[in-house]
Amino acid sequence: MSKNITKRSEDYSKWYNELVVKADLAENSGVRGCMVIKPYGYAIWEKMQAELDKKFKETGHQNAYFPLFIPKSYFSKEASHVDGFAKECAVVTHYRLKTAEDGKTIEVDPDAKLEEELIVRPTSETIIWDTYRKWIESYRDLPILVNQWANVVRWEMRTRLFLRTAEFLWQEGHTAHATEKEAIAEAEQMLDVYADFAENFMAIPVVKGFKTENERFAGAIETYCIEALMQDGKALQAGTSHFLGQNFAKAFDVKFTSQEGKQEHVWATSWGVSTRLMGALIMTHSDDNGLVLPPNLAPIQVVIVPIHKTDEQLEAIREEVKKITDRFKKLNISFKFDDRTSFKPGWKFAEYELKGVPVRIAVGPKDLENGTFEVARRDTLTKEVVSKDGIVEYIQDLLETIQANLYKKAYDYRAEHITEVNSFEEFKEVLEGKGGFISAHWDGTGETEEKIKDLTKATIRCIPIDRKEEEGICVLTGKPSKGRVLFAKAY
Amino acid sequence: MSKNITKRSEDYSKWYNELVVKADLAENSGVRGCMVIKPYGYAIWEKMQAELDKKFKETGHQNAYFPLFIPKSYFSKEASHVDGFAKECAVVTHYRLKTAEDGKTIEVDPDAKLEEELIVRPTSETIIWDTYRKWIESYRDLPILVNQWANVVRWEMRTRLFLRTAEFLWQEGHTAHATEKEAIAEAEQMLDVYADFAENFMAIPVVKGFKTENERFAGAIETYCIEALMQDGKALQAGTSHFLGQNFAKAFDVKFTSQEGKQEHVWATSWGVSTRLMGALIMTHSDDNGLVLPPNLAPIQVVIVPIHKTDEQLEAIREEVKKITDRFKKLNISFKFDDRTSFKPGWKFAEYELKGVPVRIAVGPKDLENGTFEVARRDTLTKEVVSKDGIVEYIQDLLETIQANLYKKAYDYRAEHITEVNSFEEFKEVLEGKGGFISAHWDGTGETEEKIKDLTKATIRCIPIDRKEEEGICVLTGKPSKGRVLFAKAY
Repeated sequence: MSKNITKRSEDYSKWYNELVVKADLAENSGVRGCMVIKPYGYAIWEKMQAELDKKFKETGHQNAYFPLFIPKSYFSKEASHVDGFAKECAVVTHYRLKTAEDGKTIEVDPDAKLEEELIVRPTSETIIWDTYRKWIESYRDLPILVNQWANVVRWEMRTRLFLRTAEFLWQEGHTAHATEKEAIAEAEQMLDVYADFAENFMAIPVVKGFKTENERFAGAIETYCIEALMQDGKALQAGTSHFLGQNFAKAFDVKFTSQEGKQEHVWATSWGVSTRLMGALIMTHSDDNGLVLPPNLAPIQVVIVPIHKTDEQLEAIREEVKKITDRFKKLNISFKFDDRTSFKPGWKFAEYELKGVPVRIAVGPKDLENGTFEVARRDTLTKEVVSKDGIVEYIQDLLETIQANLYKKAYDYRAEHITEVNSFEEFKEVLEGKGGFISAHWDGTGETEEKIKDLTKATIRCIPIDRKEEEGICVLTGKPSKGRVLFAKAY
Repeated sequence: MSKNITKRSEDYSKWYNELVVKADLAENSGVRGCMVIKPYGYAIWEKMQAELDKKFKETGHQNAYFPLFIPKSYFSKEASHVDGFAKECAVVTHYRLKTAEDGKTIEVDPDAKLEEELIVRPTSETIIWDTYRKWIESYRDLPILVNQWANVVRWEMRTRLFLRTAEFLWQEGHTAHATEKEAIAEAEQMLDVYADFAENFMAIPVVKGFKTENERFAGAIETYCIEALMQDGKALQAGTSHFLGQNFAKAFDVKFTSQEGKQEHVWATSWGVSTRLMGALIMTHSDDNGLVLPPNLAPIQVVIVPIHKTDEQLEAIREEVKKITDRFKKLNISFKFDDRTSFKPGWKFAEYELKGVPVRIAVGPKDLENGTFEVARRDTLTKEVVSKDGIVEYIQDLLETIQANLYKKAYDYRAEHITEVNSFEEFKEVLEGKGGFISAHWDGTGETEEKIKDLTKATIRCIPIDRKEEEGICVLTGKPSKGRVLFAKAY
């Protein structure tokens, strides 16, 4: 299979699709809209999981597991939730198959129809709040701080690997609190956890903000989000945290006895990130040569390729390499010594470039003579000859440098792509020109938001949390506004 | 809620059901046959997962993820597999709901019928081998050593928490090899991994063996298993590893070009353990007071309960306790200092006993004076007063002692419950008496196996791998036999 992929400047979308498949991250399956996450892609997801899980536990959360199926009637209980989630979904109607008359194929057994259809969970608020009713009696049972790692299904018509698939993997936190204040604090805390994770672990700068009413989670009072900017100027929602008020507690009759002895409805939050983050990762850092991975997320941080003609040379190289890999192990630097003879060094170079391995070390007989290694960086595509003395410390520093550089690069790109505009002409010009986030005044109505979307395909990505108060007029209607919001075309 | 549970001698089955719920491990959900795994139960499962995952990776496996749904037609491709798995299953037939005429309830949209029904995976051989066809061209692509952590669904009519649920969590390994020999070696290796895990991590002694043809996995040439013995004398299959031959490769047309340039079908294995292991854990170690956990699996290894009347006393205790918990942290000993004043010490003692915390430390003003702690063991229900000098080392040793003691206790119990019998009278007597494994001669036919099952409810749990050759006659038919097999009633 050729390692060449379409250039980003030619067709960004095609570049993305090819990269996901050729870098062995994921592929489409025989099931419409469902992907196979391949081992290399899954190894990256596992690193995300491990780091997030650690952060969740540090903030007092525990994992649990709730059923995959949700009885249909549960969805009718929270009025706005049903419209948002229970429509395009996978519906289980039968529980048995039987052999058809041809004695070979199998068919649904009409006698095995479920009394009530089951929905494959698109999100678990309903089944979880139905459970929390049994767990909560008094204020002493609160807060409940639970997270679930799970698969969910939303019947998407147009799917794209990682970005929008019928089945995807995610985590969903669901917490229950005695007071509104505590629930809001939780939703905000988890937004901070996500932002910290995106920026300091994935090297993806994000804007923290609120969603407008139109864009809120179905059933939420407030949806907080982190928004990232991709290289093609489109935004990507990378995580959301919802303050759900008492909506689900009321729908599922979840009350507690307060310290004062009163019966009150419980306050709720939910928050989640998904395998969509894989898409954000790819579209933030990668280039025309393939994937670029921040060292924190790279399944292989350092690949070592021997360059040799004879077996003796390979032996000598192996010996020298072992000295440094022994130390890599102690430092938890993951590495691969690729001494396969069935592939040429040039092929290997291209392979690891495509797969985004942050650091490549090449070593041949000349290097052995000189006591050096050739060290190549994936992020800058530069090479350097490094003395074997101190090479391990050099690599250790380099991995940190690369992590920091990738963040800086993405940050600088985003900084260049947040544009303040003060007229609708300017708005359209920037949107069709360099794209990115457009910081503009908006009159605060859903109507105007919809109109701008119809006219330009741009949506309000968020109302930034740290926005400054500023008197202005809406770019579309000229009505008064108290501050700017961020618009963009989005994934 | 009362902490008292039914005694095992009164009703073992009731004891189990009550214990699972009262120790906060799991509970039934609003969805028929599907359980909620509660945080405390899930924390134990996470420890199993982490250890197994480490072992899988050490033996060269990588994780990946395949679709939840399997097109119905895939099941017809492997003839024996379809009978075993595609019958009692959850069938997705529609992909949309709509609001009913009452404007409130929702109903299945008849216009959104799938062209081909999708089965919620009961096991993933079919979808995975459909994928492997695309991954394998040459011997260079082999072996593929992949594992998946996932949820699966089998529509069970009678369910019991952890032991038999419609949805359960598991891992399923699926490997592809160039030769029969290599595939068999893999299946055997994974059996050893499971046995090692059960015995040395979960403190559950197991017998390694082969399944008879009747009990084999649908689609396997050979099924290897580990069988454990529960306290009520019934066996529990704790894990299986299958050599699948070329069955799935042939069904899904997966061929490779060998080193000699020939086209050959690929050889396969699959292997799995599930949340059923939670049931095995509970029924191997626990007692009438509640759960008993081996330290390796305990979410909390040591609980510390202060006994005090005044705030000053609590402060003094807290100070002393901090000295030891600081050292616990460094030693990765998990602990909880339960200084809640809303609960009395006696209540806490009962609570942690019920939850199986291996070691309880109690400390009061008298202990502070004497420089001692009171240390209680969950496994033996004994107490000892220990000097604060060397307490941390004492606890560290004690945790190892408890782990070893639980294994020994279970091992001794099993040793007493493997009985060699030489007549069918004796067979029935032992089975209805002390139960356990019955080691008996069998003529090797499925017919006899079935007959014995009909007469006694006992099945052949396995043909032990290490059985010695021994001439004998079948307990039922008197026909010749070359060695003994293990019978038991089973979960």
